[in-house]
Parts: sequence; C-alpha cells; structure tokens
Amino acid sequence: MDPLYYENNALFVLDQVKLPGEACYQKLTGHYEVAGAIKNMAVRGAPAIGIAGGYGIALGAQAITDSEMPAFLNSLEEVIQVITSTRPTAQNLFQVAGSMRSRAAGAPTPYEAKKVLLDEAARIHKIQKELDIILSGYGLEVVPDGATIFTHCNTGALATGGYGTAFGIIRAAHDRGKNIQVLATETRPLLQGARLTAFELKEAGIPFRLITDSMAGHFMQKGEVTLVITGADRVAANGDTANKIGTYSLAVLAKAHNIPFYIAAPSTTFDLATLTGQEIVIEEREAGEVTCFAGKAVAPEGIDVYNPAFDVTPAELITAFITEKGIILPEDLSSLR
Amino acid sequence: MDPLYYENNALFVLDQVKLPGEACYQKLTGHYEVAGAIKNMAVRGAPAIGIAGGYGIALGAQAITDSEMPAFLNSLEEVIQVITSTRPTAQNLFQVAGSMRSRAAGAPTPYEAKKVLLDEAARIHKIQKELDIILSGYGLEVVPDGATIFTHCNTGALATGGYGTAFGIIRAAHDRGKNIQVLATETRPLLQGARLTAFELKEAGIPFRLITDSMAGHFMQKGEVTLVITGADRVAANGDTANKIGTYSLAVLAKAHNIPFYIAAPSTTFDLATLTGQEIVIEEREAGEVTCFAGKAVAPEGIDVYNPAFDVTPAELITAFITEKGIILPEDLSSLR
Repeated sequence: MDPLYYENNALFVLDQVKLPGEACYQKLTGHYEVAGAIKNMAVRGAPAIGIAGGYGIALGAQAITDSEMPAFLNSLEEVIQVITSTRPTAQNLFQVAGSMRSRAAGAPTPYEAKKVLLDEAARIHKIQKELDIILSGYGLEVVPDGATIFTHCNTGALATGGYGTAFGIIRAAHDRGKNIQVLATETRPLLQGARLTAFELKEAGIPFRLITDSMAGHFMQKGEVTLVITGADRVAANGDTANKIGTYSLAVLAKAHNIPFYIAAPSTTFDLATLTGQEIVIEEREAGEVTCFAGKAVAPEGIDVYNPAFDVTPAELITAFITEKGIILPEDLSSLR
Repeated sequence: MDPLYYENNALFVLDQVKLPGEACYQKLTGHYEVAGAIKNMAVRGAPAIGIAGGYGIALGAQAITDSEMPAFLNSLEEVIQVITSTRPTAQNLFQVAGSMRSRAAGAPTPYEAKKVLLDEAARIHKIQKELDIILSGYGLEVVPDGATIFTHCNTGALATGGYGTAFGIIRAAHDRGKNIQVLATETRPLLQGARLTAFELKEAGIPFRLITDSMAGHFMQKGEVTLVITGADRVAANGDTANKIGTYSLAVLAKAHNIPFYIAAPSTTFDLATLTGQEIVIEEREAGEVTCFAGKAVAPEGIDVYNPAFDVTPAELITAFITEKGIILPEDLSSLR
C-alpha cells in the first residue's frame, strides 16, 4: 500500500490515522491541503513527510500568478513557509524545501520553474525508494541469522513512500531467508506500531509480536532482544538523533543490556547544520492524543498532559547509523558532509 | 471512593475497569463471584486484591455445609484454591489466604470458623488503611520540598482499600504542604495511570501531568524527575520486586540518570519464602488488552502479542523499600523476618 502518489495534478495521500481499520486516500490539490495532511499525520514518517512536502510546494507553485521571477520566488517562499511550518522536527521536510527552493531559483521563468518543481518533487519521491533499498542492503550486515529485531514506531513503506528504513532492513533480512523475528512496540500515543508496523509485518509474513512500550526492558532483561533498529526524524552533526518519543528510553535500556542500537536513516534525514541534539526543536502535540483514544476519553477531563512527539538520543548510545552510503559510526559522521 | 466494602453479607466492589467514565459497584455474594472480580480486574492493586480475597474466602466459607472440622477445612481449602488461582503474582492474596487458613484451623467448630473468617477479613481490611498511613509517614523522609515524583500504575486508595502506598506518600507530602508535583504514566495496557491515578490526583488537588509510558526517559534526561516511587505486587527475600509491567524499565532509566528509585509496599507484600525474583510467577494476560484500546481494535486481527502483566526489578536497582516498619535498604530486608 503506497502512502502517497501523484496523479492528474493532485497528490493522493493514504490517511494513516484511519489505518488499519480503513484505507482511504485524500485528494490534495493545493499546498494548504498538503500542509493539513502533514500536520494531522494522515501522512507521517520523516521521508514520506519530505516527499509530501515536495509535492505540496510544487502544487502551491502551480497556483502562483506572478509573471516575473523575483515576485514568483517571493510567492514561492510563502508556499514553502506554509509547508515547513507544519511539523518542526523531521529534517527531510526542510531538506526537500531547500532543494525545491534552489531548483526554482535556477529556472529562467515562472513557467519553467513550475515545471522544474513538479519534476523535482517526482525525483525526490523516486529516489527515496532507491535510498531505502540500498540502505536496507547495508543493514543486512548487522542482522545475524536467528535475530530478534526490536523496533519502534513505523518505518515501513508507509513511512517512507519506498521500501522502509529500519523496516526495510527487517524486510530485506526476511526476504533473503534469514530466520528473524520482530518485537514491535505499539508506540503510544498514536499507535503507529500497533496500527501500521503490525499491519506491514503481517502483510509481509514476517514473524513478530506486538508489545506495549513499557515491556521493552522486560524482554531485554530476559535476553530476547538481539538488536534494536529504529528510524530517525533528524540526526544532528554530532550524531544526536531525534526520533519518535520512546526511542531515547529504548537506547538507554539497550545500553544497559549490552544490546546494539542502530539508527536506519537516509542521508536526507541528516542535518549537518544542526550541531547537537540540544538544538533540535521537539514538537509538542495536543493533549487529546494522550487523554483520548478513538474519540473516547481514557483520562479525567481537563487534566494537564505532556505530549512531546519526539525525544533525542545522544550519539554515545548509538552503535551505528545505517544509511544508503553505508554503515557509519557516530564519530565518523563528518564524512557525510 | 472506596474500592470495596462489606455490607449485609456481601462484598461490594467498585468496577475499576469502568472508571473514570462510570462508578458502579458489583455486589458479590460468593467466592466464585469474588474470584471473577479479581481475575477481570474490577478490583486490582495487590493490597486491595488481598482484602477482596479475604472476604471472598469468608463468603465461600459461609456456604460450606460440613459439620465436622476436618471436612470443613477440606472444603475451605477448595474455596481458597478458587480465590488464589485468580492471579499468580500479587503476594498479598497468598498472604491473606495463609492467614485465613490458620485462623480457621484454630476454630473449634465450623460455626465458629465461619465467624472467625469474617472477622479476619474485616481485620485485614481495617489494618491495610493503618499500614498505608504509617508507611506514607515514613515515605515523607525521601520527598524533598519542590520534588517532582514520578509514579507508575495506580497505588492509591483504589489499589489498597486504604490511603495508598506510593500514592499515599504523594498524598501525605501534599497534605503536609510540601510543594510537590507528579509525573504519572498512563500505564498500558489497562491504563490504570490515566484512568485511576489521574482521577485520584485530580480529586486530591495534587498538581500533576499525565504522560505515556514511553516518555519516562525523556523527562529524566531533561532533569525533571526528582525521584521515582512505585508500589509492588511481590517482593522476594533478596529484594527483587515484581510490579506492574514497565517498572523494570523505569528502574533502569532511573539508575542511568542517578534518580532514586523507591518501592512503597506494606510488609504483607513481602514474600520471604521466595528467595529471588526468578522464582516469581509472572501472569500473562490476554492479547486483547494490547490489541484493543478502549474497546476498539487498534492492531490487525489475529496477530501475536506478548502481554506480561508484571516485570521483576532486581534489588540492586532499588534505592530502598518504604514500608510500615520504616525505610529498609534491600540488603537489610532480612530484618523483616
């Protein structure tokens, strides 16, 4: 199931909030609609957010009426602003915005720029699948036969528009006949693990068990986890990594149990302009994600909640990064520049 | 709100599965009914399970028709078996069963034994409140003014039939005017934190925030946790402690951040006949608790799940036990004998 596709001048986005109960595509024809779909998490996962953002900028550009390039680029900047103000943490969105901006600036006329922007969005989409497949191939090196791979949140095709990052490695290991199994966290509050990863694992026929986030330490203590692989939303220059809330706890637990902890992410998720994790903005989402479920209250009304969507895992807890450029140790990240 | 009370030859149990949406008491008149209420978690929390178990045994005894003591005691053993086979982990249930058994054995006739058993159940109920209050007073010593106390699951009046264990300490600190606040985990899968602890904190007017279990490490990393206090379901002779799933992860995280980690439990939760945590039986509960949320399916159908209700925290991760006999270091537990 593709998380998004572009057809007849519109971006179609699978509404992942409704999965696995319903599979509905939203038709989005302008940048405000795309921004809404990113913000409400119909489309989610750092690489998929980047792809959607690219199409969103391209769609917004088509509606710009300025006939001179300087005015066009000013208007484009407003479009980009709408798209990038949706979610602050995932680096891919900003990386794509930068690439779209510079492609447009190189065009001779607004007419050309509009065409170039659509091409660039499609190129970004296509390339993600290739990045995932290369990355997943490198990832095979860290997965021993018989491994139980622990993963968090969703990093499959639904998150990347491609083959998956951490999930891509799992899929590749399974497809190559390695005898692996998976422990997948449900990933509160939005249950991307239960709703999406379990769905993709089941579809792929990969043996797995679903657990609550709180069970991670217990299964590590019992010796039932061979390695942990998660995705990333943003990796700072020093290797500090923002990813779905709960990732940091998993990294601390893995360290305490001498279990390798890997981050699988394409180079588009690396933000070398951000020096350390302390500079990464962590999105705080609405309280209702914690206090309600499927429209039903699970906590008393009017209480205070914290709901950070991400946390930051310091580089020293990360065994290595698995990227499309190979397996990179945190201390060697400068080689990505 | 009392989790249970005995009146007119029946045990009334607040159905905690329905809180906070509905507050309904179930009327239970026999030991099978009481066993059902324990098993389905209408009544939960190790001390409250113990109290309910005591009444359940007393109610079962009233229906025994044997006129001679040896036959009566055999029949009583069957009643005790029904009650203690409900949930394997909480020590209080077994402690109470032992106390009920020996009280009955000392009675001269079945008629006397039935009376003695009801008295014993009422005494166990009454004493729990006293234990909680004494324990909470000792707990004040470990709570500095201005502290943020991190807690897990529910250990309030709803869990103990009294004043609370970990929650009792929080309540006592607040009542004595200490400027404290609480971080409470929602506690998946059954959300005792969101449904019950948040409810009790709100009722008591204690400042708190509700978080998902996965956020624990993040807030410890940010320096926002002064100390962790949880309850216990069973403490082995060496100090290894079974408590709600997720407790072990919290203890590892607390250690990694140099945050004190306390277990608050009355001596009735200590099982000195069990030498280490490895001997503690961990209850595995049904998959639906994980795959459904608030009655709605959140994961694909037919998948495999692990659902251990408890985990075991080794003594070396526990700063101290807060009991009604004072604050006890793990290495001094033998003094409880």
